[in-house]
Parts: sequence; structure tokens; C-alpha cells
Amino acid sequence: MKPFMDENFLLETDVAQDLYHHHAAQQPIIDYHCHLSPAMVADDFRFRSITELWLGGDHYKWRAMRTNGVPERLITGDASDWEKFQAWAQTVPYCFRNPLYHWTHLELKSAFGIDKCLSPTTAREIFDACNDRLLHDPAFSARGLMRHYNVELVCTTDDPVDDLRHHTAYAEEMAASTSAETGWTVMRPAWRPDKAMAVESPSAFCSYVSQLEAAADTDICSFNDFIDALQRRHDFFHAQGCRLSDHGIEEFYADSYTDTEIAVIFNNVCSGTELTDAEVRKFKSAMLYIFAVQDAEAGWVQQYHYGPLRNNCSRLFRQLGPDIGCDSIGDTHTAKAMARFLDLLDSEGRLAKTILYNINPADNAMLATMIGNFQDGSVPGKIQWGSGWWFLDQRDGMERQMNTLSLLGLLSRFVGMLTDSRSFLSYPRHEYFRRTLCNLLGHDVEQGLIPFSGYEEQRVRQMVEDICYNNAKEYFNF
Amino acid sequence: MKPFMDENFLLETDVAQDLYHHHAAQQPIIDYHCHLSPAMVADDFRFRSITELWLGGDHYKWRAMRTNGVPERLITGDASDWEKFQAWAQTVPYCFRNPLYHWTHLELKSAFGIDKCLSPTTAREIFDACNDRLLHDPAFSARGLMRHYNVELVCTTDDPVDDLRHHTAYAEEMAASTSAETGWTVMRPAWRPDKAMAVESPSAFCSYVSQLEAAADTDICSFNDFIDALQRRHDFFHAQGCRLSDHGIEEFYADSYTDTEIAVIFNNVCSGTELTDAEVRKFKSAMLYIFAVQDAEAGWVQQYHYGPLRNNCSRLFRQLGPDIGCDSIGDTHTAKAMARFLDLLDSEGRLAKTILYNINPADNAMLATMIGNFQDGSVPGKIQWGSGWWFLDQRDGMERQMNTLSLLGLLSRFVGMLTDSRSFLSYPRHEYFRRTLCNLLGHDVEQGLIPFSGYEEQRVRQMVEDICYNNAKEYFNF
Amino acid sequence: MKPFMDENFLLETDVAQDLYHHHAAQQPIIDYHCHLSPAMVADDFRFRSITELWLGGDHYKWRAMRTNGVPERLITGDASDWEKFQAWAQTVPYCFRNPLYHWTHLELKSAFGIDKCLSPTTAREIFDACNDRLLHDPAFSARGLMRHYNVELVCTTDDPVDDLRHHTAYAEEMAASTSAETGWTVMRPAWRPDKAMAVESPSAFCSYVSQLEAAADTDICSFNDFIDALQRRHDFFHAQGCRLSDHGIEEFYADSYTDTEIAVIFNNVCSGTELTDAEVRKFKSAMLYIFAVQDAEAGWVQQYHYGPLRNNCSRLFRQLGPDIGCDSIGDTHTAKAMARFLDLLDSEGRLAKTILYNINPADNAMLATMIGNFQDGSVPGKIQWGSGWWFLDQRDGMERQMNTLSLLGLLSRFVGMLTDSRSFLSYPRHEYFRRTLCNLLGHDVEQGLIPFSGYEEQRVRQMVEDICYNNAKEYFNF
Repeated sequence: MKPFMDENFLLETDVAQDLYHHHAAQQPIIDYHCHLSPAMVADDFRFRSITELWLGGDHYKWRAMRTNGVPERLITGDASDWEKFQAWAQTVPYCFRNPLYHWTHLELKSAFGIDKCLSPTTAREIFDACNDRLLHDPAFSARGLMRHYNVELVCTTDDPVDDLRHHTAYAEEMAASTSAETGWTVMRPAWRPDKAMAVESPSAFCSYVSQLEAAADTDICSFNDFIDALQRRHDFFHAQGCRLSDHGIEEFYADSYTDTEIAVIFNNVCSGTELTDAEVRKFKSAMLYIFAVQDAEAGWVQQYHYGPLRNNCSRLFRQLGPDIGCDSIGDTHTAKAMARFLDLLDSEGRLAKTILYNINPADNAMLATMIGNFQDGSVPGKIQWGSGWWFLDQRDGMERQMNTLSLLGLLSRFVGMLTDSRSFLSYPRHEYFRRTLCNLLGHDVEQGLIPFSGYEEQRVRQMVEDICYNNAKEYFNF
Repeated sequence: MKPFMDENFLLETDVAQDLYHHHAAQQPIIDYHCHLSPAMVADDFRFRSITELWLGGDHYKWRAMRTNGVPERLITGDASDWEKFQAWAQTVPYCFRNPLYHWTHLELKSAFGIDKCLSPTTAREIFDACNDRLLHDPAFSARGLMRHYNVELVCTTDDPVDDLRHHTAYAEEMAASTSAETGWTVMRPAWRPDKAMAVESPSAFCSYVSQLEAAADTDICSFNDFIDALQRRHDFFHAQGCRLSDHGIEEFYADSYTDTEIAVIFNNVCSGTELTDAEVRKFKSAMLYIFAVQDAEAGWVQQYHYGPLRNNCSRLFRQLGPDIGCDSIGDTHTAKAMARFLDLLDSEGRLAKTILYNINPADNAMLATMIGNFQDGSVPGKIQWGSGWWFLDQRDGMERQMNTLSLLGLLSRFVGMLTDSRSFLSYPRHEYFRRTLCNLLGHDVEQGLIPFSGYEEQRVRQMVEDICYNNAKEYFNF
Repeated sequence: MKPFMDENFLLETDVAQDLYHHHAAQQPIIDYHCHLSPAMVADDFRFRSITELWLGGDHYKWRAMRTNGVPERLITGDASDWEKFQAWAQTVPYCFRNPLYHWTHLELKSAFGIDKCLSPTTAREIFDACNDRLLHDPAFSARGLMRHYNVELVCTTDDPVDDLRHHTAYAEEMAASTSAETGWTVMRPAWRPDKAMAVESPSAFCSYVSQLEAAADTDICSFNDFIDALQRRHDFFHAQGCRLSDHGIEEFYADSYTDTEIAVIFNNVCSGTELTDAEVRKFKSAMLYIFAVQDAEAGWVQQYHYGPLRNNCSRLFRQLGPDIGCDSIGDTHTAKAMARFLDLLDSEGRLAKTILYNINPADNAMLATMIGNFQDGSVPGKIQWGSGWWFLDQRDGMERQMNTLSLLGLLSRFVGMLTDSRSFLSYPRHEYFRRTLCNLLGHDVEQGLIPFSGYEEQRVRQMVEDICYNNAKEYFNF
């Protein structure tokens, strides 16, 4: 019996252990998509407790607690940090086989050096030990944690109306630092303009247009003005180092439309008119296209996260808002629209480097083959299938994504892992990913499925380093 | 080479063997959803032959025989018991890798103590040996078999118009039994009102309304009367010990409707008018909602089995009726309607404990995350994803369900296995499930993925017993 | 560590090795569906280089090269054979875990006896060695390669308007051969009438009708004439030995229609009118039905390949045409239409033997259960689920197909592998399939899941030979 989570955790063969310890583990982290708070980085935030750090915004844990029969007061309510932590510690032993069990213990081990299993019997001891470090150890600030995990770069996720002042302040501080201060993590913004196409809610959209007017310092009286304002913000983001966009969509939209139709729809929604479903789809189709053209012209990478059903529990949505653990995996068909959208851009020579993320693993094969349609030989792996996302962001999800990508595309050219996380403690997910990658390759080598001597052995070793670090470095070209 | 189906069948590690033999195997069976005939239980039915017991109504076997080129006369026709058994024995060796091969031999072994493989060379010997026991051994009656398999409780599946007299008679006999008579299996009815929403066939629906009038001893002149009559039957079922409903649907229905619309649709269908598709969907949407409210108010558990395409072969349907092996897995999208349906109930505080069963494994991830949206902390695992159903009711289907549930929910809180069967010999499917469960956990422990000492070891052992028995016991609270 | 691709490649157990080497490997190949050029067989074509043989039309390799950043000139452009081969050799080491890596080396080994790994360091040596054999060794002609791989029979894929003169010429040459000349591969045509239902492009359809007039030597003035002309060609194909049809469709079509509607649609499309979507679907529904009736009456086997999205990249389609690596896996739902289509034929007693191929593995369970609905006991495995197709034509795809078929149908009755290939070097895919099959069975035997002594052991051994050869031999009854 292998000990629980030892240094060869997930590494089932000698080759896998060799690949991980000698190639994967050393690579810095490029976390090209996350939801960290720029303010917390700029302020080098300190956490008051492990409860704040772990349970302050982690909807994965909240869902698990609700499933375990924990009342909402102990999850998102006004209970004390200790009460909440205790409720979580009671839930943890019910999480065997759930990724939360591994993440929890990887985080305890890699950040705090704690090797104990969290349960009601160890809860107090672990609570106190963690809090002690968080409160008193300088290495446990937001930046300290990033340094600890060897994070070279992060891209946050920002709305076009955001002034990016935390990015600016942090960049200035970094530029002013002396050469003696090492271990800075570069922080870049990323462009997430979802609200600029959310015309299904006219009043929210109108108020967003007003925010955009202010941010872009311009009047918006027409659809053309609207696009101009977005372009100004796109230019501003570019000037602040942004090289990446991201779009959260339920499905792809590639309906036919005319410029006149879109102009009319814009005027209607701005005067508060509810749109028909067909009008909403046309508008979203237009916006997806325009965003993509802006990205292509700026030389950015564009990302699409598609497929979830959000805010399914209206009771908790009213109580707590979005992103609180009531989202799930949708089952909409979108292959034809996706193909039409990408083809239109490709045929105009305006298809930027693109990363597509699905949330339903039933779409894996569809997506793995979709990207192959639009590889144009201009750059290796121009169209990427993103690493296992959200619910798929665990060993099984990662394995399925990498296995299917291997079979239907080129794993060698994969830009690899990202956290997509709100937490400064999520970097062990890169470790998880890297162990999983090395284990897959190790298995294949041991089984005689991949040659492992001479040129080919070097290629396998290089491939591990590429997927962990070099491919992203070259692809994003930050 | 491991011997075929020995005592460590499916148990690939020492830990798995320990967990199964010392924890899983001892647990009684709570078979909370099946299709046994209440009359056969009440009458303590005796089978005239293994053919009657095995081939009298098992559409799994019928499908396999048709696939193997066996003519219908030897399957459902007027051939003798021996001829049919012989045709089945000729098919069995063509069933390697199909669950029928394992079920057949598990049943021969666990009920009859027969260790031989069924094939043309052993057919006569096995036929005679089984028939001898069935005809002469008192332990081989319907009740005897349930006792043999340590079945503590079964829930049958009953129409609202059913008078439940077999349940009553059996319950009375059980109550009158002396304390010396042990090993009684509790039999409860379950509420399956599918016909009360089948308005796509007006004439069948109208005749059903008449049956309901008689059963509820009331006149039905309007939709309100119809619902009142159903409520009376619901109350009657409750009084007879029913605590569980079940719905067989092709997809979920959550279309918008008004009470007036439904009243009109009801009047139309009762006057024999064919409905439009939209009207059928509205009516089904209304009925699903009303059924759910009735269950919530009575404190029942509600089950939804969704997704199959039924009676696909109209030739055999005309010849033999429904449920004869011509159903298959559908591919309809239903996530949004399911979410809307559950959300409406949740937002009104009327969402009962719910078990959702999918038939297409491509929906596994969708369903595993759907249940998480509506866990409300009131009770552990309030919303359940049902165990592998119908075609998925085999090792691979169970493993996928448990693996995905583990990754996206809490396996620990799973209420576990049920047979969903018409046969008194299907209980080895619980054994199959329990071995599969222990094997999954054993693998994870051996690989260092689950800790296995002290508190955590006890938790793993307890988890096995919980999923096999305790969780269902607490959840249904019979 | 197992050596790369040794004689026990993919065979992980002793039983698997025994089954493969003593049963599977000896069987001849019946390649009942391929896209070989009949002219190349009739002319006993010789390849000018390994580039022509490997890269002349292999869109799998083209996709991989584009993904690896190779410009189109080195893929389908005017570069020299050596330049293209070099670009491929540079791509190969980036194909670890992609089936291309195994196919490439299986082909080098089994045809050319080359054991080296292809990479930039071995490219020139391998290029020269292969070309030397192709240019000078008589065994390396088109027919020589088929003989080398023990191919007993191939079915090509032919349009109804094809005159089949290469088939006739080859058959005559074969008939005239002396008994001393052995190793002839029988070549039969197969009927692929896709263009006869492609009414979505009226002008292409009209020109096809003209070609059909010429081929059938008849005037086509009405839909009835059109069907008569097709029937004449069907008869002609039958006379030339055709016993198999094949249909490439995006989805199944089983919309309601009247004969009058179809006659009008035909007249409209022949006068160049664009049809509505509903008209296109009605016409396709009618044609699918009529084709199926023709096949049933002739006693043929019918095949349906459904599900891909084709020609997604309009830029490369304009440049290079169809089938150049820009197709991908679709996600359309088609279960209900498929069931309706098959049921209509079955209920009329006109359902021919049928093989259904899906391209999206998410449909596996649906399809594996669909075939069970229409097994009628007339012949074993009358309705077949085709082996892993196109993107699924690799170890994982084959394993999933065979595992799901095993669980939900009878693997024993499977007609097995086909290449579906344009290449005379693709026969190692049968080896790949056979090794995969033996490995699955070997695993199950070693794990005690299949009995392996006496009658049952013989059955396992026979089952291997049946799936590799005998089942197809009996099923197609050529």
C-alpha cells in the first residue's frame, strides 16, 4: 500500500517519477487565466485566518458542505471563522474521492508543511497552526504565496470598464524595486467583456453602457459609438500589458445579421425594450465577431469558456448573488455555430490564436477535432483546447482532456494548465496537473507505447517541460 | 490467472477484499425501487421452472437471444420451457463480457449453489437441478428467495388506481405472524402516476380518468376534480405505507402555462381532442409540478427516471406489448428544463428529497453537477443521483456513476443500489454493486489516494456500510 | 520497461499474447469498406516515393502537420517529395500518443521491415530505403501490398454513375489467371449514392441527374424516372458483384412526406429552385427509405456513416476541395429519427442487414442499444454497430466501441474491423484492432471475468477468430 500523498503521489511508474521530479517540478508557473483580486496583489493582502483564505469565496467547498447537510449559516452566513472551519473539517472526511480532499491536503502540505489529515479530530490544531502562519509569517501574504509557488506571471480577469489601477500601481512598484528584491510575479490584466453582450437584461445592459461611457470618456449614442468606446478600452488594456481576452458564454452564436439590424437592436435595448430571443442571438453573434476582430488586430489570444448553466438556484441567487455554487454543466449543442464562427474569422484572415474550453466532457471529442479544422500552419498549436475547466479541473477531467487531445490532436503543443481560481492557495493544481501529465507519459513509456531512448527519450523529456512551461511562454509571447 | 468468479470476484486488492467481506457483504438489502409483482409476494409464488423464473419476463435476455439469431418462438412464443431454456443456454456462451454472463452465473451460484458454466453441454443438467429446487425446496418460493438474500425491505411500483390489496394482505399476514417466524421482508408500495400525464393518447387517457374515478370513488368533471382524485389516492397510498414516488419520463417538462390553459387542455383531451405538441408539454409540465408538490407535502422521496426511447419496434410492440426489449437510450437535451423544474420547487420551499436517474451515460457529468445546485444543507445528500439504471446497471455503468459522483459530489452520501427488477433472483446485483464499490475504494487506498489509518481508516470502513445500507435507511426513513 | 512496439505490442497479458499470435494473426483480412482507387488496383499501381504513398492523400497527417506549424506548401503544395517527407519527419516526434505515431511505425515495420523511429535524424535514411523498395521491389505495387497483408477481399466505394470498368477489368484478369498465380485479392464495388440525395445544392444535383441519365441510358423527366434510373444502376452494381451500400449523412432523416410532395420537390430542384430546409429534409427522408428498400430487395448489407461536420474551413475548401483535413465531429441528436427510420423498414419486413457507424463517441451507448431494438432473430447480429470510425479509428476508440458493445450487445457477433482508408498501407490497422481485441479478452480472462477452460476456453479462442474473420465472412456472404 502506497502511503497517502507521498512525494510520488499520482506517479505510478519509475519513468513518471523521473519525469516529474527532474523536469516538471522545476518549471515556473505561468498562470495565464485566473480570478485573483488585483487589489489583494497590489496591497499584498494578509489573511486573518485560514477560514478567510479557504472558505471566503470557494464555491466548490460551499457545494460540498451543502451536500453534506451543513446549514447555510455555517457556510456563507454570520458564523465565526472557527465555526465555519469546524463545519468544513467535519465535511472533509466525507470528501474521499472528491478533488477537494486532495486539494485540501496538497495546500496544507505545500504551503503550511502540515502532513496531517483534516478531520474533526485535527481541526483545532490545524486551524491554529495555519492562522499562526497567516498572521505572523511574512511569507504568507498574497505576494508571499505567489513567490512560494514560483509563479512567474498571472493574468487576472477584468471588465473593460475597470480602471486597472491596481495593475498600474503594482507594475510601478515592481519597476521601482531594487535588483535585490527578487521573486516578483508579473501581473497582467485580461479582457472579459461579457457584460457588453448581455442584452437579455436591458436595464443592466443600459447601466453598463453608462459605465462604459465614463470609462472611455466618450458619449455613446449609437452602436458605432458603443464599439468605438470598447475599442478605446481595448487600446487602454493593451497599453497596460493585456494580451488575452476571455468570454464566458452559454453557447456559441453565429446567426446571420445585418449591421442595420444590430444598430436597431442596440437602440431598442438602450431605450429599455425587451428583445426577442432571435434579436438577442443576433446581437451576441455580432459582438462575438467584433470582439474577435479586435483581438486579431491587436495580436491577442482569445479564450472562450462555454457551456455552463449559471445561477440555477434562484433562492440562493437572491440571497448571495452569482458564483456561489449553484452553477452546473449544460448540454446545449453548439458545434455548428462554433464552426461557423471560427470559419468566418479564418476566411477573413482574422482568426486570432484561440483557446476553447468546454464544461461538458461529452463534448471532448467534438472540441478536440474542431480545433484541427482551423490550424493553419502559421504557429504550432494556434487553436488550443483548454485544460480541464471548472468541474473538470481534477485528475479525471485532466486525464480525459489530455488523452483525447493526444488521440485527436498533438499533446506536445498543448499550452497546459491554468488555475482559473480566486485563491492564492490554488497553485498546487499545477502540481496536480504536472503529476498527472507525467503519469500518463510514464505509463505509455513503460508499456512500450512511446520509445524511450536517444532522440525520442530527449523528446519525451522536452515535451514535459514544454507543456508545463515553454509552450505557454512561446504561445502568449508576453 | 484468477479463477472465474471466485470469492474475490471483482475485488482486485487486499483492501477491497477486506472491505467487501467484512463490511459490505453483511449488510441487509433495502431494495427501494423494483418491479416485483405484489401478488407473487402475497401468494408466496412458486415457479414451475427456471425458464419461468429467468425467461418469463426478462427483456435483457430476450434482446440477447434475438441478437444471437434465436427465433421469437423460442423467446416469447409457444415453445416448451426446455426448448426456451436450451435456446438461452446456447446464447449464454456468446454473452462473454455482457453483464448477463455474470448475472446468470452469480444467480446460479448464490441461489442454487451451482458452480458450473451454463452452455449447451451443461444445459440439461442445470435445467433439471434448478427445477428440482424450485419445485420441491420450500426455500425457493418468492418469499424464500427474498429471505435467502437478506432483503429487509422492497418498494414495488404501483399505479395510483391500484387497490394495493396484495400489499394489505401481505402486511396483515406479517403483522399476525408469531415472533418465531423471522426473515420477513417488508413490502411497501410506490406511487407511479405516469398514466395521469400521458395525454398524448387521448383515448387511453380518458379511460384512465374513468379508472381513477372508480378508484378514488369520486366524479371527475374538471381538472380540479382530477387532481383531487389523485390526492385521495396519494393519501391512500400514504396510509398503506408508501413513502416514495417514481416517474418515467422521456425528458423533463418545465414549460410556462396558466391554470386556465391546463383546465382547457384537460377538458379537450377528455372530450377526445388530439392535443398539439405544445399543449402536451404544458400539461406534462403542470402534472410534474403538481405531483412534486403532493410528494413534498407528504414528506415522500420522489424519483425521476428519464431519457429512454420506448417501444421502438412497432412490429414487436403490436405482437407483445411494451417492455419486451425494444427500448433504447435516447439523446434528448433536458438540462435547462430539469434546472427550471427543480428551481421552481426549491424557490417555493417545496422541493422534496429527490433521486434523478439518467439513461444516457453522456449525461453523467451534467446530472452529477445538477444535483449540487439544489443541495440545501437540510439533510445530507438531499438531491441524489440514482445508481446506474437499466442499460447502465452493470459494472462499467456503476463505476462511471460512482466515479463521476465522487468527483463532482459526495460519494459518501450516496443511497446506493436498487434492483429495478421484475425478478426474485436479481438480488446478486446488490452483490455486484457492493463488490464494485469496494474495489474502487480499495484501489484508491492502495494507490495512496485515500488515507487508511486511524480516523480515516474507520471512515472508509463506515463509508462502505453507509452506501450499502445506512444511507438508504436514514434517507428514506421508512 | 517494455520495448517500443515489440511483438507483444498492446498485448499486456499471457492470454492476450496467446490469443493474438495463435488465433488473430493468422486470419485473412476482409476489408469490407475502404476508399481505395479501383484504377490503382486494376493497373497494379507503383508509387514513385513514400511521400506519394503516405502524404498524397492522408488528411490525418495533413492535420497533424498544420497543427505542428508546418506551412501548407510543405503539406499539399508544390514542395518536392523530399521536402514534404522532411516536414512530416519533423512532425512525427510531436505525435507521441497520437495514433499516427503507431500507424507510421507499424507501417514501416510490417511493410518495409524498418525498425527505426522516424525523426529528423532518421528521415533521409528511411526516405531512401522506402523509395528503393517502392521503385524496385515487385512486391511493393498496389496488388503486392494487398498480397503481403493477406487481404482476401476489399470493397471499394463507388458512385452509382461509375461505370466500374476497373472492377470489370481486374475481375477478368483474375478469372484468366492460371492456378499457379495465387494471392489475388477479390475487389468488389460498393454503392454510395450520397449525391442522389444532395438536393441542398440544386445545380450540383441537376448535373448529377444528367450524369445518371447517361450512366443508366435513360431519360429522367420525373422523380419516378429518377428512381428507375437508380434501380438500373443498382441492378448493374449487383451484376458486378456489389453486395453492400454505404451512406454518408450528417444525421438521420425520417420526416413525414407524401409521394406527391417528393415529386414536386424533385421537379422544383431540377428546375433550379432553392429548397426550404423542410423540403430538403423530406427529400432526404424519402431517398433514405427508397435506398433501403432497394438494398433489402437485393439482399445487400447497408451501411450508414453519420455525424461529421464537413468542410469547416472554407478557405482550405476553396483551395483544396473536400476531404483535406477540415472535417470534425458533430453533436447533432438523431436517435429518434434513426429509430423511426429503422422501425418503418422493420415493420414492412424490409429492413436489410445494417451497419451503423457513429462519429461522436458520446453517442456510443445510444447506438449500442439502438441496434438491439431491431435484432429479429433471423440471423446473428443482423443489425451491427460499426467499428470505431474516422477519428475513433484508434486504440481508445476501438476499445470504447468494443467495451460498450460488449456491455450492451453481443461482442461475439461483431463483424469487426475495416480500414475505411485510401491507402494501400493501412492494413496494419487490422493488426492494431486484433491486438486490441485480444488484449481486452486477455485482461478479462486473467481477472477471472471470463472462464477459460474446457468448452468456454474453446469459445474464447473461436470468438477471436470469428471477430477477426468468420463473422464478416458469414455476414456478408460474398
